[in-house]
Amino acid sequence: MSEADFKYILDTFFTLFSMVLIILMVPGFAMLEAGLVRTKNVSSVLTVNTMIYAVASMAFLLVGYSLAFGSWENSSMSIWAAFLFQMAFVGKTINIMSGGVSERVKIIPLMIFTVVMGAVIYPLIVNVSWGADLLAGTVLDIDMYDLAGSTVIHSTGGWALLAAILIMGPRKDRYKDGKIKVIPASNVPLVVLGALLLWIGWFGFNGGSVGSISSVENADTVAKTIMNTNTAGLAGAIIAAVIMYARYKLLDITMILNGALGGLVAITAGPDLYDMYTPILIGAIGGALVVFAVPMFDKLKLDDPVGALSVHLVNGIWGTLAVGVFVDKVSLVSQLKGIVVIGAFAFVSSYIVIYIINKIVAFRAEDDIQVEGLDVNEVGVESYPEFKRAI
Amino acid sequence: MSEADFKYILDTFFTLFSMVLIILMVPGFAMLEAGLVRTKNVSSVLTVNTMIYAVASMAFLLVGYSLAFGSWENSSMSIWAAFLFQMAFVGKTINIMSGGVSERVKIIPLMIFTVVMGAVIYPLIVNVSWGADLLAGTVLDIDMYDLAGSTVIHSTGGWALLAAILIMGPRKDRYKDGKIKVIPASNVPLVVLGALLLWIGWFGFNGGSVGSISSVENADTVAKTIMNTNTAGLAGAIIAAVIMYARYKLLDITMILNGALGGLVAITAGPDLYDMYTPILIGAIGGALVVFAVPMFDKLKLDDPVGALSVHLVNGIWGTLAVGVFVDKVSLVSQLKGIVVIGAFAFVSSYIVIYIINKIVAFRAEDDIQVEGLDVNEVGVESYPEFKRAI
Amino acid sequence: MSEADFKYILDTFFTLFSMVLIILMVPGFAMLEAGLVRTKNVSSVLTVNTMIYAVASMAFLLVGYSLAFGSWENSSMSIWAAFLFQMAFVGKTINIMSGGVSERVKIIPLMIFTVVMGAVIYPLIVNVSWGADLLAGTVLDIDMYDLAGSTVIHSTGGWALLAAILIMGPRKDRYKDGKIKVIPASNVPLVVLGALLLWIGWFGFNGGSVGSISSVENADTVAKTIMNTNTAGLAGAIIAAVIMYARYKLLDITMILNGALGGLVAITAGPDLYDMYTPILIGAIGGALVVFAVPMFDKLKLDDPVGALSVHLVNGIWGTLAVGVFVDKVSLVSQLKGIVVIGAFAFVSSYIVIYIINKIVAFRAEDDIQVEGLDVNEVGVESYPEFKRAI
Repeated sequence: MSEADFKYILDTFFTLFSMVLIILMVPGFAMLEAGLVRTKNVSSVLTVNTMIYAVASMAFLLVGYSLAFGSWENSSMSIWAAFLFQMAFVGKTINIMSGGVSERVKIIPLMIFTVVMGAVIYPLIVNVSWGADLLAGTVLDIDMYDLAGSTVIHSTGGWALLAAILIMGPRKDRYKDGKIKVIPASNVPLVVLGALLLWIGWFGFNGGSVGSISSVENADTVAKTIMNTNTAGLAGAIIAAVIMYARYKLLDITMILNGALGGLVAITAGPDLYDMYTPILIGAIGGALVVFAVPMFDKLKLDDPVGALSVHLVNGIWGTLAVGVFVDKVSLVSQLKGIVVIGAFAFVSSYIVIYIINKIVAFRAEDDIQVEGLDVNEVGVESYPEFKRAI
Repeated sequence: MSEADFKYILDTFFTLFSMVLIILMVPGFAMLEAGLVRTKNVSSVLTVNTMIYAVASMAFLLVGYSLAFGSWENSSMSIWAAFLFQMAFVGKTINIMSGGVSERVKIIPLMIFTVVMGAVIYPLIVNVSWGADLLAGTVLDIDMYDLAGSTVIHSTGGWALLAAILIMGPRKDRYKDGKIKVIPASNVPLVVLGALLLWIGWFGFNGGSVGSISSVENADTVAKTIMNTNTAGLAGAIIAAVIMYARYKLLDITMILNGALGGLVAITAGPDLYDMYTPILIGAIGGALVVFAVPMFDKLKLDDPVGALSVHLVNGIWGTLAVGVFVDKVSLVSQLKGIVVIGAFAFVSSYIVIYIINKIVAFRAEDDIQVEGLDVNEVGVESYPEFKRAI
Repeated sequence: MSEADFKYILDTFFTLFSMVLIILMVPGFAMLEAGLVRTKNVSSVLTVNTMIYAVASMAFLLVGYSLAFGSWENSSMSIWAAFLFQMAFVGKTINIMSGGVSERVKIIPLMIFTVVMGAVIYPLIVNVSWGADLLAGTVLDIDMYDLAGSTVIHSTGGWALLAAILIMGPRKDRYKDGKIKVIPASNVPLVVLGALLLWIGWFGFNGGSVGSISSVENADTVAKTIMNTNTAGLAGAIIAAVIMYARYKLLDITMILNGALGGLVAITAGPDLYDMYTPILIGAIGGALVVFAVPMFDKLKLDDPVGALSVHLVNGIWGTLAVGVFVDKVSLVSQLKGIVVIGAFAFVSSYIVIYIINKIVAFRAEDDIQVEGLDVNEVGVESYPEFKRAI
């Protein structure tokens, strides 16, 4: 067997393995968000998560992949494995966005946005970052280092979310009489399960983004990438716990998990480039940013039930900058330019698309529907019909 | 290292990877069914799912594997990996059957049936389809193409279920005074979690059924198989959503998931043979069939709490036919013959075995036990003892 | 490509695969324990499980790995993969310990113990069993066969738990007026989900402990190890079911799962050494031991809400002995010596550390906090705030 064949086979297998881990993020996001929202909106959140996977993946299959990569040829592994790996990413950007407008977003307009995001917006961002590169040679040409998408995935989803929040406004009565209404998570075990599945999925997300395991050097890089990814998550969880305990003498598990996820987002731009200790710092800063950003967005009345802006947008930016800060060969200016160009495109295009869809089919559920809950009105299936409600 | 050694090692690893994904279907089925039934029967359903895995696998280890494959030798990979992969399948046929008689089936007779199914019935079906082939040269010799078991697994389970339903009848009061009593799912997050775990397990189920990843051609086939499997699931979910919305302006998540599962069952016979677009059609038809079959079976008073007849029996047949329809080199007549021969054997043998067991230990829980719930009477463990019931 | 490179690449990939399976045990333990305790302590248990993963892994990264293996060099695979695999183990010992003191343990002192366990105690045990071997040439030198840690992981965690229980005492009112208060599991689906995730994680735990898949012989050993691991779990579940049914005519699912876990712990010392039938016996004895040990520990007033002493300590010992009993080339005396030396060290060192910490920060939640629940007092997050309590 030739070395090329060996590499082709092994990288196909490795990419399928990575893709499976990423698909674990579909139940991951679904459980996390189902646990964080109120019981009257749980079926709606679950439907959204399931349909995002179905619709975004199909849009990417039919249109998006070609737009991002130009052709269905030229791959050092099976093209079908390469496609599946890229397809596993696309829904994530919309998961990030949909989570942050939970408890008030209607499913049909969200699905229309999902088609546009999966077929056009996200593929264009991939095109200029990892793909065929339409901007090559222009003044906007991006030279950012972003291994697995701190900017391309996480900030993109975060910018789309910010656009959606600005257009849709907060949940009914969330900010009333100058006070912030605290809405507790309805099912904490699901939150933990979901966050841990995301964590595990991240190993495939970042590890698979190395693109090959079939040389000694690449095998090392893959393993180091997964190790650094994990380390940043550990640090994010620990720092969030420390801050929460220092402030309140309480170890708020939802904040600890968001701290871990913040660390994981922050490491995603360059997990292959750091030594084994730097991710501790990057993840810890990421976790701390989440703890401080969550109340800040609430002060700005940007209502985000799952903390997605803090986890994905803030840390997507921080993580992309971090590569420029900690890695000599990567230019901080290039990183900044990538953040700005991608961010501007993601925000503006999402804003325009959501704005237009919103004129035709309103994104925001009416106040009385929000009070009754989206499950009855959008899904027709209550999440826990046999359980008596305490509140 | 010789090429044969390389293939042996890699295919062993790949088969273990696939087997692990399939075992994820054990919690997958357990959570799906635990979420779909009423809280008073949840522990019972969970016990059934756990014990099916234990008992069917043990029966297959002690008797079934030898009956199916003739010997524990001759494998192009580690025989232990080959066994584990086949073992991971056996419980699925019984999961399909047990799910459809939930909320009224007693565990002990079901376990006796599990022994017979895992040791004899299913192994004989594997024998004539994929294994030693006892029917070779006879008029019943099967020449069906069924890569991963649309017929061998899913229809077999479906036929066994039909036999069980005919013998056991519907749940108490399900069809009363000419009306169908609607019984909602008790825990929707578990339904979603379970269905998504099944979806992920399917990648191992179908991908692993290619049997080898250790050549460039096989690596391509494995990746394409997983891609086509996924595509059919996407299409099944989308079409079910579209139909539900067109009819009711509601996006019933349980039906969407059953649509996805229907698409996955339908693709299972030939995911390696199609181009990348055909699975959209096959999966969409699969999803639509589920949506129409569920009320049809209810009209026939075939009470199936989880929709297993619609998902597995109907789509097992459709998926097997689809290979004959869409693939030139596969004969539709051969597919039909396979469906009929396997179907007749699965139904008749299951019917006889269930009928006999039923004479000795009744399968059906008495009416008062159904009213009180199977958990108290069969398991002795309530599923959610601290939660106050609303109904 | 040289054979050495091939082995390096493949064993790195295989070890990462195994590590991912083991990390599934983090949600596994979390869901199992969250399902077993009362709703008022669920968030606390989830926080403990999450923080153990974060803190123990970080302690092992910063200190423990070097202590256990002497250096970060010399590995036949990527050192980062080797580290990740070993790191995935460390939290397990503390999960075992923390589960058994659920519903009364405070998180902060537990975290201090986690640092000591992850940085010093567990690494020293690994050092003398699998690592650099400080005891080599001394009278205490261990020559025990313990492939994946029946003693090194499971008994160690069990001994630490016994020390903690002796120091902390039982939950308030658990043993009152000479009676044992039965406290039912609050969420049985989570128990099943958690136990099944642990089961799947075990394939990586034991299979990965073979250390290499890159020769025909090793591929065979890995596959056989996973098969035998699974078989012991099957047997443990079946025997527990049979005993429960013989005694009570009930199939208590929590006991069946503990029986399976008992079988899995018991096989862990030597799954690579047995023929395919011996694990049935080892697992069955393991499952039976659990069924008899659970009430025995209650009679001794060693309060263990999740049955961890029965599953991990008793079967860790049994499993280690079993290798000496069933494998000719392994000396029963060496096994016994390993059990005693490791056990004495684990128990005494844990006892001393817990005793000292306990003098500074009490491990045991005060009675009124136990009554109110740890969630409100330690985490500040209720697990199911919208659900009305029945009890």
